[in-house]
Amino acid sequence: MDYKALINIMPKKELLDPQGKTVLNNLKNIDVYAVDDVRIGKRVELTFSAENEEKANEKVEIACKKLLANGIMENYSYSLETI
Amino acid sequence: MDYKALINIMPKKELLDPQGKTVLNNLKNIDVYAVDDVRIGKRVELTFSAENEEKANEKVEIACKKLLANGIMENYSYSLETI
Repeated sequence: MDYKALINIMPKKELLDPQGKTVLNNLKNIDVYAVDDVRIGKRVELTFSAENEEKANEKVEIACKKLLANGIMENYSYSLETI
Repeated sequence: MDYKALINIMPKKELLDPQGKTVLNNLKNIDVYAVDDVRIGKRVELTFSAENEEKANEKVEIACKKLLANGIMENYSYSLETI
């Protein structure tokens, strides 16, 4: 089966997000007001094959834990769809 | 009303994604095989207030077009939720 994993990797809430803060401060320069918070992370779209959904989840977990996300600073979540 | 916009900004399909290619090549080093494609983009979570949903969509469009996404190289999509 072919799968597509849509992975969101965001900085942990308790950490500062300097890139987000910079965007927050600059939004008023383009007349976008009343913004409370901006958090910026990564979006990864992974297209792959696996025998079944269990194996597919396993692959995505390994990819996130070992390569894509930094467990100390980031949280990840994902959804899996068949294609 | 308070809104949260979940924005995904991805490199356009017809463009090379060197960061994605690097991840693709490295996944086999952590024993993740049979991956066809990896695309890496940005995920932005925007918390803000707006009078109504129409105004909220307008704000997100302006933020994406003028600041967050590079229209030449990236596509954006978003979903809006009330909080």
